[in-house]
Amino acid sequence: MIIGIILALGALALLVAMFYAKQVSSISISEGASSEEEVARLTTISSAISEGAMAFLRKEYSVLSIFMVAFAVIIALTISDHSNPSLPFGIYSAVSFLIGAGISILSGFIGMKIATIGNVRTAAAARISLQKSFSIAFHSGAVMGFGLTGLAIVGMVLLYFGFDSLLPIDVVNRDLVIMEILSGFGLGGSSVALFGRVGGGIYTKAADVGADLVGKVEAGIPEDDPRNPAVIADNVGDNVGDIAGMGADLFGSVAESTCAALVIGVAIASAVAPELRLSTLLYPLFVSGVGIVASLISLFFVRAKSEDKVEFALKLALIVSTLVMVVAMYPVTMQMIPASFQLSPTSNVFTNFGVYISVATGLISGLLIGLITEYYTSHRFKPVRDVADASKTGAATNIIYGLSLGYNSSVIPMILLAVTVVIGYITAGMYGIAMSAIGMLGTIAVGLTIDAYGPVSDNAGGIAEMAEMGPDIRKRTDSLDAAGNTTAAIGKGFAIGSAALTSLALTSAFLTRANLTNINMLDPIVLAGLMIGAVLPYSFSAMTMRSVGTAALAMIEEVRRQFREIPGLLAGTGKADYAKCVEISTAASIREMIAPGLLVILTPLIIGFFFGVQMLAGVLIGALICGVMMAISMANSGGAWDNAKKYIETGELGGKGSEPHKAAVVGDTVGDPFKDTSGPALNILIKLMAIISLVFVPFFMNSGGILLKYFIK
Amino acid sequence: MIIGIILALGALALLVAMFYAKQVSSISISEGASSEEEVARLTTISSAISEGAMAFLRKEYSVLSIFMVAFAVIIALTISDHSNPSLPFGIYSAVSFLIGAGISILSGFIGMKIATIGNVRTAAAARISLQKSFSIAFHSGAVMGFGLTGLAIVGMVLLYFGFDSLLPIDVVNRDLVIMEILSGFGLGGSSVALFGRVGGGIYTKAADVGADLVGKVEAGIPEDDPRNPAVIADNVGDNVGDIAGMGADLFGSVAESTCAALVIGVAIASAVAPELRLSTLLYPLFVSGVGIVASLISLFFVRAKSEDKVEFALKLALIVSTLVMVVAMYPVTMQMIPASFQLSPTSNVFTNFGVYISVATGLISGLLIGLITEYYTSHRFKPVRDVADASKTGAATNIIYGLSLGYNSSVIPMILLAVTVVIGYITAGMYGIAMSAIGMLGTIAVGLTIDAYGPVSDNAGGIAEMAEMGPDIRKRTDSLDAAGNTTAAIGKGFAIGSAALTSLALTSAFLTRANLTNINMLDPIVLAGLMIGAVLPYSFSAMTMRSVGTAALAMIEEVRRQFREIPGLLAGTGKADYAKCVEISTAASIREMIAPGLLVILTPLIIGFFFGVQMLAGVLIGALICGVMMAISMANSGGAWDNAKKYIETGELGGKGSEPHKAAVVGDTVGDPFKDTSGPALNILIKLMAIISLVFVPFFMNSGGILLKYFIK
Repeated sequence: MIIGIILALGALALLVAMFYAKQVSSISISEGASSEEEVARLTTISSAISEGAMAFLRKEYSVLSIFMVAFAVIIALTISDHSNPSLPFGIYSAVSFLIGAGISILSGFIGMKIATIGNVRTAAAARISLQKSFSIAFHSGAVMGFGLTGLAIVGMVLLYFGFDSLLPIDVVNRDLVIMEILSGFGLGGSSVALFGRVGGGIYTKAADVGADLVGKVEAGIPEDDPRNPAVIADNVGDNVGDIAGMGADLFGSVAESTCAALVIGVAIASAVAPELRLSTLLYPLFVSGVGIVASLISLFFVRAKSEDKVEFALKLALIVSTLVMVVAMYPVTMQMIPASFQLSPTSNVFTNFGVYISVATGLISGLLIGLITEYYTSHRFKPVRDVADASKTGAATNIIYGLSLGYNSSVIPMILLAVTVVIGYITAGMYGIAMSAIGMLGTIAVGLTIDAYGPVSDNAGGIAEMAEMGPDIRKRTDSLDAAGNTTAAIGKGFAIGSAALTSLALTSAFLTRANLTNINMLDPIVLAGLMIGAVLPYSFSAMTMRSVGTAALAMIEEVRRQFREIPGLLAGTGKADYAKCVEISTAASIREMIAPGLLVILTPLIIGFFFGVQMLAGVLIGALICGVMMAISMANSGGAWDNAKKYIETGELGGKGSEPHKAAVVGDTVGDPFKDTSGPALNILIKLMAIISLVFVPFFMNSGGILLKYFIK
Repeated sequence: MIIGIILALGALALLVAMFYAKQVSSISISEGASSEEEVARLTTISSAISEGAMAFLRKEYSVLSIFMVAFAVIIALTISDHSNPSLPFGIYSAVSFLIGAGISILSGFIGMKIATIGNVRTAAAARISLQKSFSIAFHSGAVMGFGLTGLAIVGMVLLYFGFDSLLPIDVVNRDLVIMEILSGFGLGGSSVALFGRVGGGIYTKAADVGADLVGKVEAGIPEDDPRNPAVIADNVGDNVGDIAGMGADLFGSVAESTCAALVIGVAIASAVAPELRLSTLLYPLFVSGVGIVASLISLFFVRAKSEDKVEFALKLALIVSTLVMVVAMYPVTMQMIPASFQLSPTSNVFTNFGVYISVATGLISGLLIGLITEYYTSHRFKPVRDVADASKTGAATNIIYGLSLGYNSSVIPMILLAVTVVIGYITAGMYGIAMSAIGMLGTIAVGLTIDAYGPVSDNAGGIAEMAEMGPDIRKRTDSLDAAGNTTAAIGKGFAIGSAALTSLALTSAFLTRANLTNINMLDPIVLAGLMIGAVLPYSFSAMTMRSVGTAALAMIEEVRRQFREIPGLLAGTGKADYAKCVEISTAASIREMIAPGLLVILTPLIIGFFFGVQMLAGVLIGALICGVMMAISMANSGGAWDNAKKYIETGELGGKGSEPHKAAVVGDTVGDPFKDTSGPALNILIKLMAIISLVFVPFFMNSGGILLKYFIK
């Protein structure tokens, strides 16, 4: 029964996604366009973007497939279950891993497909009305939001059902074994996310920086001008980074936090009355199912009547879905979770109300982190205006103020996370921490909808410009885009916060499986682990930032070459070779994603193998605390620089072209890799290392820590 | 006997300092100057700098005195010794605190005095020869290096002797009680250092940024031009930040690491044969004494025959003193420390050879960290040249590459620190960690000599410019200054590395006193502590960076006002009001140092009082790992930007005035607060919080953690 309900909720999400996908696709471009010729222009441009995006995805995923198969083989060969030596545990985990990776890849394709369908229709509909245009962009986002959430839930429930049917009844710790196998699903999703985020992040910023530096600065042509050879690559990049990358990131978070909660929750289910067993066991998945309903309800509140209401409409959806979830989770939790339980025979006694509190805390702190992020990155508030003001004395003060804003903005979110951890732990032990993560991700369907809305309307603006639809239309798409920028910042705050909790939940699950209840921070091995963990976000950020620099340099050379060699290109009579720029971005991002990817994947494996699980726990926590601080401050510095520039462009402090504006452009360019490459990729760093540790814990327990005996007597 | 030897070694250092002080002061300015008129100009300028510096110190220290007395009263009232309730433990600690603070203040005065005597003489002697000029700057530095080390050692030995004579023989755990009282000395030194570093850092960069932005950029006059009203403040700033601030920082490190080792070492001394008791007890002080001899020996290797040998000469001193120490420590350690010992009845058995290894590891890893820092910040190597190259595409890419260089540069030093901690712990437990810190600080006398050499020769260049001594002289002082810049970067790496180990040693001592041998990282209170600890460096850096911005803004306004209102100032006929700018920097830095200062001092007190020592341990470690990474990357980004600019100024990439140069100037300005304000102040943050925890541990044990009962059942 319970499986049926969760499956139904997942299916509901998929139906919503399909409904909106059909609705958006069925809109004809010619409905809004002013002439046959405009239709032709729009079609040409949008196919170029769509082809570029798909070409990148195909290339990226073909590289990824090789990696995934290799990784699956490693999983199959190295891990096994001690209590059930005859069970092909490694193979099952590898299957689970491949399914997770496959669904993540599928989600990426779906998101990209709809985004590249929706962007041109959003542009065309801007001729008709703001509402029409907004709703196309928003519904395109909803396809991504609901589709991905639905796939995650359905995938995990079916996987549970499959392994529950497959495994012999006499397997020792049967429930736990199944949940452990399911962890592979999270690892698969997260591995795809790593390359999606890193590769996508490098792609989008190489194209963006390259297009801006040569086009805007050197040649003096406007943004999104069709004469700029990198303009298609730039628009492709928005989809690659913000749709496929962000989607894979949050898909990973949902899958991972659910896996963590499922593993930890087995202990509760094993001790309750048989009629409550399955509901307790699958409660984490159920929460995500309820989130779909809450997200669906919130969609009815989204109405964009006028240009200045767009941002509020999007934010309202997030607030409504959170409130609905907070209310709905009470009866659900009281029903599904036993009135009192223990996580181990020696643990404290917890209650179902405690579990509810942990979920609610996650929900609320997620919303608060989002709103704080908005405060620090929207130019309606003081911090961004201070950065804009500091541009008066030049680029240097703009940078100093922007960096300091980023540092400051990470203070309260981190404290909120600390409070969430403490409340989660008090109310339901490690299970509470995992459930806070799931709570924070409860409204993910609407969160992702809003996130994906951003690049769609950003692209729509680009297409309107390239198709020369005129300034009125551009103004309309710009107002949609501006709202998307703010909500994108909220989404980033959210993604980091949930990544932090997910990582903690995974670390808890890892420790639970490793039978560790005490990690002594004074043990030098643990302390060294913390220190090495702290190093990782720095090394990783250095790599990814430099990659953007290197890739952008290649792009700059190519754009300069085309301006120089293609006759009449700048005059508008020649035609730019867009495909070449798309190729450069694609090749560079795929080449550059390897090294940081390996750093993240190999570190936990090496540490666990050579120095054991205690040091690994130190590494995970060290990377977590330093990574979260860095990720938040990078994302918010970047967002603030972007919006400080936009604020000046509204005519403040001299407006476009003034000295302060030039200073603000420097800040914005520095912020690009901060907020779209290194910052978001840190989410994956902290989550992926934790789930790798979780999946490989049987291996570490059997053969890990081989160097430890030389260190500790 | 042992006390006598240490005292003699301390006195030797003081004698060396006095010898050089006399030598430098006895040189007449007119010896080098070309005319009576030049002597007059030199004298006027140097007195302006000297007066400004002294005025700042007087003002800063008068504010500090109030704070110190108040803090001493708090110490006297709140802490007591449980085992010896009748002992006026708090009062003794307060006395120890005041003496530590007093000596630190005295060191600052001495350093400033000699620096402001040496700078003008270095400038004048540049007329005679490079060697003459170099040796004056170097010997001025030696006054600071040896004087401060001598004062630290003599102060602590006399304090030990005093309390050993004062305390009744029947005091329970008498040795431990004395060492605990001595911890107050470290706290005093470190509290002065906090305000010295923060206030000095804000002072120097406000003046520097203000002078540069209006003078160089707006008015187009050269650096150190006497027409610039902020030029004296800028030169005062070099002394205030790099002499008084740096000196107080490293004085604090020496005092604190010694206190930590003394407290932990009591356990060893209590179990050994009576004839070894005192030598074991005072071994940490003895190591510093040996360091004085090693430093003295290395001075004989310092010869600057030609301009390109200056840097090598300085580096050689550091390498020689390290090697001498590594050799000398072997017999000393084998003699003074028992062949085998335990830190507690249940601890591993350690050996004196193990202690030697821990000291040697500290020495060597300190040197390595210094050399790595040089690699990342000297323009003889690839990283800085890459940053310079990136300036070709503008300020944004310069900033991106510089930040990424900083991140990268922190990787190996942190791993070296982790290795040092593990080796230290394996060879001698917590005592080993403390002894690694002392080892790293063993060559402090020569290290500080080199550090202080930098601002003296920097000032000499400024004075030569202001006194219009001509381009030849300026070129000579510039070559001295350039070497000083590189060694300053080495010194900073060194200061951070030793601060990290010192903080760990103090944390170990704190935990030893709090009877904690296990801090469970999975305890949510500890985890929350780690997260809050991670927040502190960010919050602190945001504060100090903004303070520089605010103070620089005030300076900019004033310089602009003078250019506008003083007739003939730019033409060279009017006279700038230097004193006004000095006043502004002084007032701003003293006002702005309060808030970050309170953050650092109050956080451990509040956490300990409300949430107890476990959470406090988490806060200390969290702040340590995030703070060290941030401090190293900030210092090195800043150093690299500075030297990338200097590299371009040598004529590369278009040279001075080219577009790449302008881009590099932006990076240099961003780097100013990074490397001279926020970065170095983080050293104090991590050390000071740890020693506060150590000193207040009796208070926390008696009345701390009052909110804990609501959290943990």
